[in-house]
Formats: sequence, C-alpha cells, structure tokens
Amino acid sequence: MSDSRSQAIEYAHQQRDKFMKDLIDLLKIESISTEPEHKLDVYQAGEWCAEKLKGYGFKNVKVMDTTGKPSVIGEHMEAGPAAPTLLIYGHFDVQPVDPIELWDTPPFEPTEKEGRLYARGASDMKGQVIATMAAIEAIQSTGKLPINIKFYLEGEEEVGSPAMKGFLEENHQLLSADYVLNPDGGILGPDEPTITYALRGLAYFQLDLEGPAMDLHSGMYGGTIRNPANELARLIEGMHDENGRVTLPGFYDDVLDLSDEERANLAKLPQTDDFYRKQTGQTELTGEAGYSSVERATARPTLDVNGLLSGWTGEGSKTVLPAKAMAKISCRLVANQDPYKIGDGLRQYVADNVAPGIQWEVTDIAHSSPSIIPTDSEVVKAMAKALETVWNKPTLYRREGGTVPVSGYLKDFLGIDSVVSGFGLPDDRLHSPNESLHLPTWHSGIDAFVHFIYNLGE
Amino acid sequence: MSDSRSQAIEYAHQQRDKFMKDLIDLLKIESISTEPEHKLDVYQAGEWCAEKLKGYGFKNVKVMDTTGKPSVIGEHMEAGPAAPTLLIYGHFDVQPVDPIELWDTPPFEPTEKEGRLYARGASDMKGQVIATMAAIEAIQSTGKLPINIKFYLEGEEEVGSPAMKGFLEENHQLLSADYVLNPDGGILGPDEPTITYALRGLAYFQLDLEGPAMDLHSGMYGGTIRNPANELARLIEGMHDENGRVTLPGFYDDVLDLSDEERANLAKLPQTDDFYRKQTGQTELTGEAGYSSVERATARPTLDVNGLLSGWTGEGSKTVLPAKAMAKISCRLVANQDPYKIGDGLRQYVADNVAPGIQWEVTDIAHSSPSIIPTDSEVVKAMAKALETVWNKPTLYRREGGTVPVSGYLKDFLGIDSVVSGFGLPDDRLHSPNESLHLPTWHSGIDAFVHFIYNLGE
Repeated sequence: MSDSRSQAIEYAHQQRDKFMKDLIDLLKIESISTEPEHKLDVYQAGEWCAEKLKGYGFKNVKVMDTTGKPSVIGEHMEAGPAAPTLLIYGHFDVQPVDPIELWDTPPFEPTEKEGRLYARGASDMKGQVIATMAAIEAIQSTGKLPINIKFYLEGEEEVGSPAMKGFLEENHQLLSADYVLNPDGGILGPDEPTITYALRGLAYFQLDLEGPAMDLHSGMYGGTIRNPANELARLIEGMHDENGRVTLPGFYDDVLDLSDEERANLAKLPQTDDFYRKQTGQTELTGEAGYSSVERATARPTLDVNGLLSGWTGEGSKTVLPAKAMAKISCRLVANQDPYKIGDGLRQYVADNVAPGIQWEVTDIAHSSPSIIPTDSEVVKAMAKALETVWNKPTLYRREGGTVPVSGYLKDFLGIDSVVSGFGLPDDRLHSPNESLHLPTWHSGIDAFVHFIYNLGE
Repeated sequence: MSDSRSQAIEYAHQQRDKFMKDLIDLLKIESISTEPEHKLDVYQAGEWCAEKLKGYGFKNVKVMDTTGKPSVIGEHMEAGPAAPTLLIYGHFDVQPVDPIELWDTPPFEPTEKEGRLYARGASDMKGQVIATMAAIEAIQSTGKLPINIKFYLEGEEEVGSPAMKGFLEENHQLLSADYVLNPDGGILGPDEPTITYALRGLAYFQLDLEGPAMDLHSGMYGGTIRNPANELARLIEGMHDENGRVTLPGFYDDVLDLSDEERANLAKLPQTDDFYRKQTGQTELTGEAGYSSVERATARPTLDVNGLLSGWTGEGSKTVLPAKAMAKISCRLVANQDPYKIGDGLRQYVADNVAPGIQWEVTDIAHSSPSIIPTDSEVVKAMAKALETVWNKPTLYRREGGTVPVSGYLKDFLGIDSVVSGFGLPDDRLHSPNESLHLPTWHSGIDAFVHFIYNLGE
C-alpha cells in the first residue's frame, strides 16, 4: 500500500467522530422532498452540501434550481487532464416520516444506539453521501486526490427525480466524466461486500375514480348506483391473475428474461426466503409463480397499491356512498420495460374494465427506467478491488429491487455507466420508521471509498 | 273544522318567521355526534331542546346522559288520563360536514335561498323536530292540547343510536304512550304526501387488515409478500357476485321477500329510474339483478364500502408497501335480517377468503334492526287523514331505504308501533354538502302536525 493511501486510511480511522458530527448536522435538516411544506429544508440540505464541497476546495460549486428543487454540482480537477474524472452522484432529500408514532426516537434528532445511528435518511442516503466526502477529506488531509472528482447531488430522488432529465439535458457538459459512482445502493450484510449490477425502474400513478356527483346517503341510494370505492376494489383485484402475474396489457412484453447463469448466481446470495421472512416479519411469502423470492424482489416486475383513500375514514361511522375513490399504484420495472408504456397499459386496462358510469383518470406521478450495468467495466473492477481490500473476501454481484433513476439517465445523457455501491444494509429500514445506519459498516465504507479513488488513479 | 283547530292553523301561518328563527338557532349548534370534538355541541343542542319544551309547559324535562351523549325527555299530560298519549321521537345530532369545500354556504350558518334553508341538519332532522314543536305552540297559543304528549329526543342517531337500547330498557315507564310519531322520514315530493311503512336496518363495520410488521420499501420487498391494500381490494371485490348479490354467508337467509302487491305499489311511486338518475347525477344505474331501482333502494339489502384508507394518501408519491389497510363497510338490511347475524357472516367470509399471512379484524360500529309498521293502525290513519286535509290528495305508502333504529327499539321495548312521517324531500341532500330544507313543504308539515294532533284527540 502506498504511503499516502495508508495515511488516508489512518486519518479516516482517527476522524470518525468528526465525520459522524458532519452526518448528524446534515441529518437534522428535514429535507422531505415529497411534502411541499419542507421545500425550504430541501434547499437548506443542498446549501449544506455545497458549503462542504467548497471547504474541500471544490470549484464552480453551485446550488442550481431545477423545477422547484435544488441540485448541487461542483468539481475538483487538480489531478489534471491526464487523470480520469469520477462523477459522484447522491441525493440529500429523504422520505416522509409517517407513521411518526412508530418511531422510537425523533426522526430528525439523530440518536446513536448499539452501533447504529437512528434518523430519517441515515442510510438512504445522507450517510452514503457523507462517506464519500469523508474519503475525500481523508485523502486531501494526507496527500492529494489522484483523480479529478465532480459531484452531482440532487434534492428530489425520493419523488422520482422528475427534473433530472431536463437538468442533464442542459448541464451534461458540466457533468462530463469517465466514471460514475452512485453510492445509493447497499451491501447484503456487514460481511458481504456487494456491487449491484441491475436496478429496477419505477412507474408510479394515481388512479382516481368518480361516481355520483357528491357523497350520497347510503340508505337512500345504496343498491342503485355504482359505488366508486367498490369499483376501485374490483379494478385493483383484476390487476393480478391467480398466478400473481400483472394483467395490464403488454406488461411483460419488454421484460429481459433471466438467464440460467443469473438465476444460479442469484440463488447463491444470502437473500433466501428466510431472509425475506425475517426482514418483513411476514411468515407467508408470495408473488409471481415460478420465481424465487430474490428473483421476485429484484429481477421481476411488480405492481403494488401504495395508498387507498375514499369516503369516511375517521372514527366511528358515516353512512355515505363516497363520490370518489383514489389509489396510488406503482410498478417496479426491470430491463427493458419502459415506464411510459406501462402507463399506457394501465390506462388501457382501466378503459377496458371500468364499469359504465364511473369517470376515471390516471395521473403520472413518477417514471424511472430500469437499468443494467456491465460488471466488467473499469470502474466496477476498481470498486470490487477496493471492497476486497477492506473485507478480504470476494465481491458479490447482485440486482437491486429499488430504483435509482440516475443510473438510466446518466447512461442516456452522458454516455457513462455507473457503479452502484453504497454501504446501507437490508435491515436499515429505509422508508420506514426507525431508519438507521450501521456504523461499523459505514466506517468500512469510508475506507473502501478511499481505496476506490486510489484504485481509479492507478 | 273546529274553531280551535282552524285558529291553530291560522297561528301557524302567521308565526312562520318565529318558527324559522327557532330553527336557525338550533341549526347553528354544531352537534356532529360522530366527531368527539363536537361532544359539547351535542349537549348544547339537547339543552336547547329541553329549554324549548319547558317554555311550552312540558313537565319533568330532563337532559339525561346515556353513554356520553344526551337524551332529552319531557311530558305534557294535561289532557288527562282519558285522552291518548303521543310520544314524539326526534334527534338533534347531525352528520359530519366534510367534504367542507363543496358547501356553497357554511354548514352551520343557515342561509335562506330560493325557498330553501341551507344548513347541516336542516332537513335531517332539526327542521322536523322544530315543526312538531311549532304545531304544539300553535295549538297551545289558540287553545289546549287535546292529547297528552311526551318527547324523546336523542343525540346519537347519526352514529346508529348505540345507547338507545339501554336507555329504553331503563326508562320505558317514562316513555309509555299509546302512539309514537317519528318525523325522521320524508315525503316523495312537495305534492306527494307520504307515510313510510318499512325502514331498512344497518350493520356498519370496520375491516382492518395487517400484513408486514411495518411499512416497507416497495423496491426492496415488492413482489415477495402480500400487500394488505391489494388484499383488501380482493376481499371487497369478492363481496358481490356478478349479479350484484352479496356473497356473505347467510346474507339473504332471513330476507322477507316482496309480495306481488307490494311490488305493484312500489312501481306506482314517483321513484322511477329517472328519479334516481336525477338525484344521484349518475346516468348508469345498477344493483341486484331482478329488482327495480326503488326496490333495490328500499326493499332489498345492500353492501357498500363507505371508506378506504391505506398507506400513502398525500400529494406525490411514497414508494411504500403499506403495513395496514382499512375499509368501512356497511349493509342496509330489510325485515327480518338481524344485524348481528350479518356481522357473523362478514367474519365468516373474511376468515374463509383472506390470504395466509394477513391478520384481520372486523369491528362492529353500528347495528340497527330493519322494521315494518302496520298501515292500518290508529296512528297511521290519523296521520293519513291529516296529510289528506293539508294536501287534498290520497296518501302514498312507501318503504324507506334509510335507517331509523328507534322504530325497531320502541316496538321492542315499549310495544308501540310508530308512524314515520316527516317532511324532508328526496333532494334535500341529507348527509351531503349543501343539505337544505324546502320551506313551503316545511310549512305544510307544521299544518299537518296540527291536524294530526287534533285527529288523535277526536
């Protein structure tokens, strides 16, 4: 190991308290991008990141307005034109916190407990962003960055990055790079160094049904007209067949089937049925017939109801025939499904199946393309080597069930493949109450980023 | 017409502004019984009625606590033991007002417009209660009440009168009477004097499903476990068959079938399919196969979803697999269905059909027995004659799709048949935004109550 590399690792080990303080500062900002009342908090989180980058000597640091949300960019190009340039992507927005009553500690008052730091965004992904910054600080404090580094941090990942496409169209020169690191992915366990080679996409919709012109008395009119809440249930029920397959027209047309080799590799992962039972608290697993749980969760497309609202939902009773019923419905997609075509399929399904007299509307809320990343690219190899140095065991390659829209967009607009490798763990409770970050894994992750940057510079 | 009777009618005509002022006073009280924050308002409405009765010389007027809601009783027995005693039932609580944004005028600021008075409870049923009080005032101001009168007013009709059974068990001596007048029913049109001979009952439930132990990230777990919102939709869909019949076990076992004569009578009513289209704003009518709309709405049992709630229902997206899903579900019942047996059927249906891994609970929210009232009783004949005097045309006899639990309870506990006759109209928008009272019909109703009381005294 070179002197400067080992000194950087030494620095990273000594400064863990300082990195933790940085993380806590950022976690205290309530940057919930889906809730309009937190708009200014999202900006504040962006400003915080921009100040941090300036402190590390990054140039041209800007907090840029996209469509009402900020993106932060900045570059550190002192390794010179002969050295490669790495673009680090991240997001500083977080998911909503409700049901708030299920949190053991306040989501925006980071709390350390038994080797974990509890806070909304601790793992997804403020902890990952701070880990990359910490690696840069460690290298700069003990030597010089061996590569050029750019940052692209966004404030609307949790709402599906609606402005990213336009932002990349306008700013792709600023972001030009040789490699992309996206640490918004996790590893499979504290002792399972992992790189993710495929991600699911997302198509998120709101389905609104409207029946009578107003809420009606169920005693006076019950039995005579179609109830939109009952009709919504009927439509949702019909979206799956008895084999757990989605019935929307054309849904599976573009799905890239799993190869036998991939299925064999996925079967080796620690994501067994027992793993899914333990993580979900559900003894009964289910889903599309003919596939294992890990395949269902990462390599097959799905359709789920994310929310339902109709009529009277307060305490007690209101004997009302609701005028309206709403469902939030989303599909996780796999290569090469197109989220816009999935929306067309949903609209066609509703048009074909909705009962007469019911008005309906499907609203697009978020679209993200699925992606697959080559495992033999330079950047993946640099990361695999970094992981093997830190963990001293072979890297696992897996698919991710979640969605990181940036991977598809960066490939489309910048022509760059991303390596997706962060240090969250499956039981970090992303998007749920009591989200947390496993601190020993986070510390290893900072080390791995130091090695990754040095590997790329060699 | 006797002198005193015609003087009472004359008084009623002259004092319409005063009666209206009384009604507006009562309507301003926000006595929403289903919302705990309006608990004191419900008491205030009860106190208002009690003060009014005292002003009319009623004795033993009491505001009695039931199970957290008040009931008001009082009696005027000066006609002596030889004269018959009429018990007048009413309720001073009202439905919730949401969606509040659809009201053209504030629901608790009564507003007169084009012959109608707009306010929550104007028709259901503060207007009807005030009409009976106005008739008593008219008779007392111009002569003497020819019969004894008792009042029994409750504050929880809109939540299914859960305390009434116990109240009647304990207080049936206080309420003993020869006849019951229940003006919580309407007539079919301003020129259609109507008496209602049957009412539907109600069984109202909350169905809660629970899947995973917490809300989960749909990307990480979508496709592997059962989603309780999807499962709720599946269960609701299965509660009707393709003929619009309810599939709960035993649902139709105790239904008293319509006779051919009844069906012929119902077919003569102005409640045609066009009537239902106009009232609901729905061009497509539907329901149980083999029955007309008026039969479906008044003489056949139904099952409707009154509310749905699950997961993320705010603006934008949250990619969550909800841990829980809830439906409010109610059945309108006809003689001789038993609401408790219907609850057993719902529980059996869920137990038989729910998917493994989903926890469920059915909570009873309200039960009311259906009822049928003899059309050849003394009191119905007195009311029919009163209607014919005021409207100068034959009385129509109909069934009511809504629920007036008191009718069944008074028959059960006091052994008294009720005449159900009030002066609401089908387009009064009961339970909906912009509820209103048609004032010319209300004025005729006050006259009819004057005649009814004199008829009973003859």
